[in-house]
Amino acid sequence: MQVDLNCDLGEAFGNYSFGGDEQIIPLITSANIACGFHAGDQHVMNETIKLAKAHGVGIGAHPGLPDLQGFGRRNMDLSPNEIYDIVVYQIGALSGFCKIHNVKINHVKPHGALYQMGARNKDIARAIAQAVFDIDKTLIYVGLSNTSLISEAKLVGLTTASEVFADRRYEDDGQLVSRKEHDALITDTNEAIEQVVNMVKSQTVVAKSQKTISIEADTICVHGDGAHALDFVTQIRERLTKEGVSIKSLGG
Amino acid sequence: MQVDLNCDLGEAFGNYSFGGDEQIIPLITSANIACGFHAGDQHVMNETIKLAKAHGVGIGAHPGLPDLQGFGRRNMDLSPNEIYDIVVYQIGALSGFCKIHNVKINHVKPHGALYQMGARNKDIARAIAQAVFDIDKTLIYVGLSNTSLISEAKLVGLTTASEVFADRRYEDDGQLVSRKEHDALITDTNEAIEQVVNMVKSQTVVAKSQKTISIEADTICVHGDGAHALDFVTQIRERLTKEGVSIKSLGG
Amino acid sequence: MQVDLNCDLGEAFGNYSFGGDEQIIPLITSANIACGFHAGDQHVMNETIKLAKAHGVGIGAHPGLPDLQGFGRRNMDLSPNEIYDIVVYQIGALSGFCKIHNVKINHVKPHGALYQMGARNKDIARAIAQAVFDIDKTLIYVGLSNTSLISEAKLVGLTTASEVFADRRYEDDGQLVSRKEHDALITDTNEAIEQVVNMVKSQTVVAKSQKTISIEADTICVHGDGAHALDFVTQIRERLTKEGVSIKSLGG
Amino acid sequence: MQVDLNCDLGEAFGNYSFGGDEQIIPLITSANIACGFHAGDQHVMNETIKLAKAHGVGIGAHPGLPDLQGFGRRNMDLSPNEIYDIVVYQIGALSGFCKIHNVKINHVKPHGALYQMGARNKDIARAIAQAVFDIDKTLIYVGLSNTSLISEAKLVGLTTASEVFADRRYEDDGQLVSRKEHDALITDTNEAIEQVVNMVKSQTVVAKSQKTISIEADTICVHGDGAHALDFVTQIRERLTKEGVSIKSLGG
Repeated sequence: MQVDLNCDLGEAFGNYSFGGDEQIIPLITSANIACGFHAGDQHVMNETIKLAKAHGVGIGAHPGLPDLQGFGRRNMDLSPNEIYDIVVYQIGALSGFCKIHNVKINHVKPHGALYQMGARNKDIARAIAQAVFDIDKTLIYVGLSNTSLISEAKLVGLTTASEVFADRRYEDDGQLVSRKEHDALITDTNEAIEQVVNMVKSQTVVAKSQKTISIEADTICVHGDGAHALDFVTQIRERLTKEGVSIKSLGG
Repeated sequence: MQVDLNCDLGEAFGNYSFGGDEQIIPLITSANIACGFHAGDQHVMNETIKLAKAHGVGIGAHPGLPDLQGFGRRNMDLSPNEIYDIVVYQIGALSGFCKIHNVKINHVKPHGALYQMGARNKDIARAIAQAVFDIDKTLIYVGLSNTSLISEAKLVGLTTASEVFADRRYEDDGQLVSRKEHDALITDTNEAIEQVVNMVKSQTVVAKSQKTISIEADTICVHGDGAHALDFVTQIRERLTKEGVSIKSLGG
Repeated sequence: MQVDLNCDLGEAFGNYSFGGDEQIIPLITSANIACGFHAGDQHVMNETIKLAKAHGVGIGAHPGLPDLQGFGRRNMDLSPNEIYDIVVYQIGALSGFCKIHNVKINHVKPHGALYQMGARNKDIARAIAQAVFDIDKTLIYVGLSNTSLISEAKLVGLTTASEVFADRRYEDDGQLVSRKEHDALITDTNEAIEQVVNMVKSQTVVAKSQKTISIEADTICVHGDGAHALDFVTQIRERLTKEGVSIKSLGG
Repeated sequence: MQVDLNCDLGEAFGNYSFGGDEQIIPLITSANIACGFHAGDQHVMNETIKLAKAHGVGIGAHPGLPDLQGFGRRNMDLSPNEIYDIVVYQIGALSGFCKIHNVKINHVKPHGALYQMGARNKDIARAIAQAVFDIDKTLIYVGLSNTSLISEAKLVGLTTASEVFADRRYEDDGQLVSRKEHDALITDTNEAIEQVVNMVKSQTVVAKSQKTISIEADTICVHGDGAHALDFVTQIRERLTKEGVSIKSLGG
């Protein structure tokens, strides 16, 4: 049994720092690197690829909506064609930095609102997946377990990795409970760790309704910013290891 | 004897059209495609790669300064490292669209102020050239003849193509007379055509001072916008052909 | 009986021209001037205020979503607070150019997706109206007749001007038929002119369903770009004049 | 004897925090508020005006170059007309937030590269000053003591406030030693405090060359970010008070 730990990195911009990339990177196996639309810039991308290479983590493109001020978290009414093009552009841009450092992109994970839009809308999910496939059909596609992000990517012909969240509650259909609802987050660390271990080991999760639903758990989303982030990831790692789960990069 | 005709394409943005790409492309052999910093956007890049592929012209990345409002024509005081990164990013982004259309980037030509800065400053020229080389050392590098754009690219190890301008006057050192001076442009069509034919055939040009200087002329810069652009390019083609000069893509 | 003719102006950006502001301005009575978010820039704003002053038309701020690439036409999921702030910023910015030319802003009309969002969502309509009121409660607020744009502005305490469209079809509730539907536009010039004259004179319109609905028609939206724009506006002016309707600026 | 303490505030952007505005504001008398070009955004501007109003400090517009990635610190080759327009736009935008909170802009201080360019180039200095004057001739203009920022503003007819730096070394002509030189900064706190107290009391400073030059010191630039910023400002305040210098807002 194995699972990947992925984290968004490279979200600084210009004079603005963000997150603690150097601190979290030894604890993860895959890095989702911002590509300059919702966060990140050319310098940050270059540095983050160097960092990911030095630590041997899987390198992922993390394309987002063209909304730096909103950090790519505000839905925008883009057509599938528009989404296809912004994904191609961003993966391409990141591939430039991969080339100069002689590494390869291993996976792609859409960011923020783009991820949420793709998890709820098949046409958008298809556009993202097609862009990834057309650039490089060997890329692993990371999306929210049980949603159109995964099903459309499979239809397109991509290898997928289903993502789960330790600290988010689930609806019965596998969607995340919206952050606008008061009980979207699991704030108790132990409860979150139990949830994630359970998802990895039994491939099920207890939804908000208390119904047990099946879920695929190929990769766990963790965070590098926030007061307890490092401690939380460390605990997840220890617990998974104790349970006999190997923590390995996607495709590794 | 042969020469390339290159033109900047893909300079529309969002709702804004620009130039007459469809009209000029049958007349040229290399297209310099804007990469979204000084002009162009993801959709325009996708369409322009399609157009270039359909017409069989050489595809070039045309990276510029991050200044859409100024169309990349206003000098910015960027460090060589900053310039290196913006060139890597833009070539990478364009390569994404090349991949989805199964074509290759053939050359790189810096745009506007980036080109001018590189023609006058060795450190900047070196940064641009190094970025191109690090991404793909087989790319042909287009720069102003007789300047550090070419000499630094050669030092880095790139194959270069020296560019000349039909309708611009030259300083004794091979630099273009600044557009801020009243006699920067050759407005008489016949004179411009004589100059360019002469540059290609004899590899010399008469500078503004009336001194004859030697110049390399591998590629001629032409324009797709402006009232007489198409007519002017047509005349250049006819005259060169009549003089026995083949018009061929760079590296062709 | 009187009506205003308003047109979006100042939508050029940097090196990109747009529309035919000089041609349309003699035919209109109110100019909605882009403020740099969806279109326009500082230079364009300065020039457009000069143009509007020279022609004595009413000056309006035309705030839009922060989406230059999408020309402010793509919905973005902004909170009412975010919308309030972008409206304040843009009206403020335009007021700077008004001050240097010693003119006043007469009205505010939201642009594109912001206008559509406000016509369908009371919270957004309220946020826009409140921003306008808080900056200057004497500003006239232009919004789609019969919608929350108008009703919320009245609740806030603003003087409103209900806008109608000559060449768009209406739903029974007064909303415009979405441009995504095939019959959104009235393409026959005579039919469009009949519709608009009828709206002004009888304050009713025949909706797409053939039902006659009442509508307020204080100002007519016309366009300066497109092949027949000038001719169309000229015909509207002539017909309205013939029907005894005065064409006057808002508040005039 | 009196002096003002000014600090750059409101430099956060979207999801990115910056500086410690709440901590520094009780210690200063004037706030230079970023206007969205080099830093800041609409929400940040709104919040910063509220904060400045609550603490009763003088409110200043802090216009910068349109270069968020470079934080407005990279010179750009803009024409005086282009600079005029970006200053008008930014002061206007900030004035929108002043209106909704019923406060007034008290001063204007150009930011970063715009400030440096204006301190060394009369045409640029004139363009900035003219924009300020044309918007509101009662605004106080803050610029580097002994430079064209001040002299041009006086020629235009503005009331000026000459600015000095505690921790920067001076050239013989009153310019700051460039940050590119190793001895640009005074790193010893006591030395910096001595320098600034001396500048305020004797209106002279010992330049890098050891020559004593005369300098006007109406306002002292302090910083809110950095480990020792608060402590340093506190010490400056105590020392000035002890020396009998009142710390008062510009124009106060």
